[in-house]
Amino acid sequence: MTETQETRANPSRRALIGWGGAGLALGAAAAGGAVAMARTGDDMDPAAAETGGAVEFHGVHQAGIATPVQDRLHFAAFDVKTDDREAFVQMLKDWTAAARRMTAGKTVGEGAYGGLAEAPPDDTGEALGLKPSRLTLTIGFGPSLFDKFDLADRRPEALVDLPKFPGDNLDRSRTGGDLCVQACSDDPQVAVHAIRNLARIGFGKVAIRWSQLGFGKTSSTTPDAQTPRNLMGFKDGTRNIAGTETDRLDKFVWVGEEDGPDWMTGGSYLVARRIRMNIETWDRASLQEQEDVFGRDKREGAPVGKAKEHDEPFLKAMKPDAHVRLAHPDSNNGITILRRGYSFTDGTDGLGRLDAGLFFLAYQRDVRKGFIPLQRRLAAHDALNEYIQHVGSAVFAVPPGVRDSGDWWGRTLFSKGA
Amino acid sequence: MTETQETRANPSRRALIGWGGAGLALGAAAAGGAVAMARTGDDMDPAAAETGGAVEFHGVHQAGIATPVQDRLHFAAFDVKTDDREAFVQMLKDWTAAARRMTAGKTVGEGAYGGLAEAPPDDTGEALGLKPSRLTLTIGFGPSLFDKFDLADRRPEALVDLPKFPGDNLDRSRTGGDLCVQACSDDPQVAVHAIRNLARIGFGKVAIRWSQLGFGKTSSTTPDAQTPRNLMGFKDGTRNIAGTETDRLDKFVWVGEEDGPDWMTGGSYLVARRIRMNIETWDRASLQEQEDVFGRDKREGAPVGKAKEHDEPFLKAMKPDAHVRLAHPDSNNGITILRRGYSFTDGTDGLGRLDAGLFFLAYQRDVRKGFIPLQRRLAAHDALNEYIQHVGSAVFAVPPGVRDSGDWWGRTLFSKGA
Repeated sequence: MTETQETRANPSRRALIGWGGAGLALGAAAAGGAVAMARTGDDMDPAAAETGGAVEFHGVHQAGIATPVQDRLHFAAFDVKTDDREAFVQMLKDWTAAARRMTAGKTVGEGAYGGLAEAPPDDTGEALGLKPSRLTLTIGFGPSLFDKFDLADRRPEALVDLPKFPGDNLDRSRTGGDLCVQACSDDPQVAVHAIRNLARIGFGKVAIRWSQLGFGKTSSTTPDAQTPRNLMGFKDGTRNIAGTETDRLDKFVWVGEEDGPDWMTGGSYLVARRIRMNIETWDRASLQEQEDVFGRDKREGAPVGKAKEHDEPFLKAMKPDAHVRLAHPDSNNGITILRRGYSFTDGTDGLGRLDAGLFFLAYQRDVRKGFIPLQRRLAAHDALNEYIQHVGSAVFAVPPGVRDSGDWWGRTLFSKGA
Repeated sequence: MTETQETRANPSRRALIGWGGAGLALGAAAAGGAVAMARTGDDMDPAAAETGGAVEFHGVHQAGIATPVQDRLHFAAFDVKTDDREAFVQMLKDWTAAARRMTAGKTVGEGAYGGLAEAPPDDTGEALGLKPSRLTLTIGFGPSLFDKFDLADRRPEALVDLPKFPGDNLDRSRTGGDLCVQACSDDPQVAVHAIRNLARIGFGKVAIRWSQLGFGKTSSTTPDAQTPRNLMGFKDGTRNIAGTETDRLDKFVWVGEEDGPDWMTGGSYLVARRIRMNIETWDRASLQEQEDVFGRDKREGAPVGKAKEHDEPFLKAMKPDAHVRLAHPDSNNGITILRRGYSFTDGTDGLGRLDAGLFFLAYQRDVRKGFIPLQRRLAAHDALNEYIQHVGSAVFAVPPGVRDSGDWWGRTLFSKGA
């Protein structure tokens, strides 16, 4: 975490202002105390951080990338529905204001429950009383956005369209998007609430193209934390970049001044892939086959021939097409990405099979030096390909963080002088 | 809770037996200590109950009905794919054994990770290391099951096919089912793991017809707990039956000896309805309209003209078509059901709208005296109908609990002498 991205305690999600006027006795007068939020930084109670803490919205980088991974995800890709640049910029400012409040555990607007009864509430209300739950909201701009609003000359070279990889079976209705918002929280209701309210604020300017809920994180950005298991039952993402590894973040994740364009300095690039798992086929594979495919043992997550998950892997002991061997930086000229994916289960397909898998999210400094060469290699050789299929895909330029209360999402892109 | 349905502490979900034989050094030798699970009953640490506790599987009634509502749901309806009664009964026994282990935080089989490498693992593995997380598994038998296996004369009179209600727009692919399993847990990965492993055990005998994930409970069966908000932002289910209200449970939920058939004594009937909310339309309705529709204020959940959620409602102060007024027992000759529903958000439909709403689950002693008359009234008059649509439906006979380690799901139905 950067110095401005500490965690703070916050008792409860409330409409802080505008409680009067509804004519009802109110037993919550003390709620105003929530305005003065105690910033306790690193010494805060871990249990509070787990369930109630707020993650700082402002910073050099957007939260939701190197900050600790939360338990739940609601990811939405939006298409732009207006050609009015001013209206779109105003929406980005309105989104920023709403995001600033929601990540602090507040309702979207100040008149959420006590405003004019004749008007729709400012906030849809289902998160009232819930804790901030470490909500982070992270915005990204897709390649197609740069075809609009006279932005063509501002499109970063690193924001390339992803090539078609062998085995890709992309569903157009789960692919692409002019912009995206990644909402992560320990409470799914808080994450769903955030996307829903942004969609509502954006009505007429943007519309949701597709969205994805994730219920189990599959990576950790916290050193020493237990690596979660994916739906194949394996620990995956063991060697992920930790949010405290400033050197590796600068090398592999954050766009530097020397990279250009200027407006992206401090930002990153996000690749999202919906990877369906052939769960039923996998579940009938032998333990030996499963362990050969990954190059790890299932129980401990240890690399082949080793005892513990974090033991240094000896790649040559693995089968040539083992996933860990092929994906390891030593096999890829050092390529390293920050993974932040989630498991998903979206009910059942028409054939009685679980529609389940991994919603892969990876951040990197340059897609051309990160996901693309890595996936070219995996798509061609990975033993795992027998059991998975990439069915959705998107790429986004993730701008730098919102610096302070006067700043807004996309300012560096849309302000000519920036 | 009944005397046999206490909560117990349990450190972690592990394969308790069968760890040997894989040739890897194992730092978890102490894990065997988990076999001796401390049963601490009512005095257990509430935080442990929240995240790690196991709910007793055995009892007069199945767990998952009157036991405290967990945070997450994975509900699956299955169709029978065999006409071999013996094979089906064996599957029910295998399911029971697996459910007994999984609800205790164990893997499905004893050779989950240390068995023969040449065989598929006994357990899919994604819940290894996770706590029991209050997992409950509750089985039900649909009307169509009684057309099979010579069961026609054992079908309860109370298990009627639901009529078509005004406004119903049922999707066949989300309706019906020969049997169902309701998996509830505080950890979605644990609930998803349970359904997946039951489906796997049932391969060739049953197949999933449809399934539904729920992420936010919308009712509480715990007295004095905060009533959760539904996705309309309102507290709903305020007057639900608490799991401790033995008298009301006996009167409204549990099938009595006098009701018949004998095999259902101690059981209940479950109605499941997938209720889509027209979220975007609702979000544009004024606060006054929203409060009129429910008959409650949005902030506190207080009935019209009252100050607090649990204040006795004065029904005549509400609009005649207000939801609370129409659904209240006083307007329905005392009809009372136990609600145990969950919010759902299944991404976006093809029109950019959230596919979100309430997965309504209600338990009752007799569907003809519970859901059917209540829904007839609501479907005809409820002001809420402008904003919701019932798109999935099913009804199940939920047999009594599994008494002990020799008992199994469905024994009272399938054992002729029972």
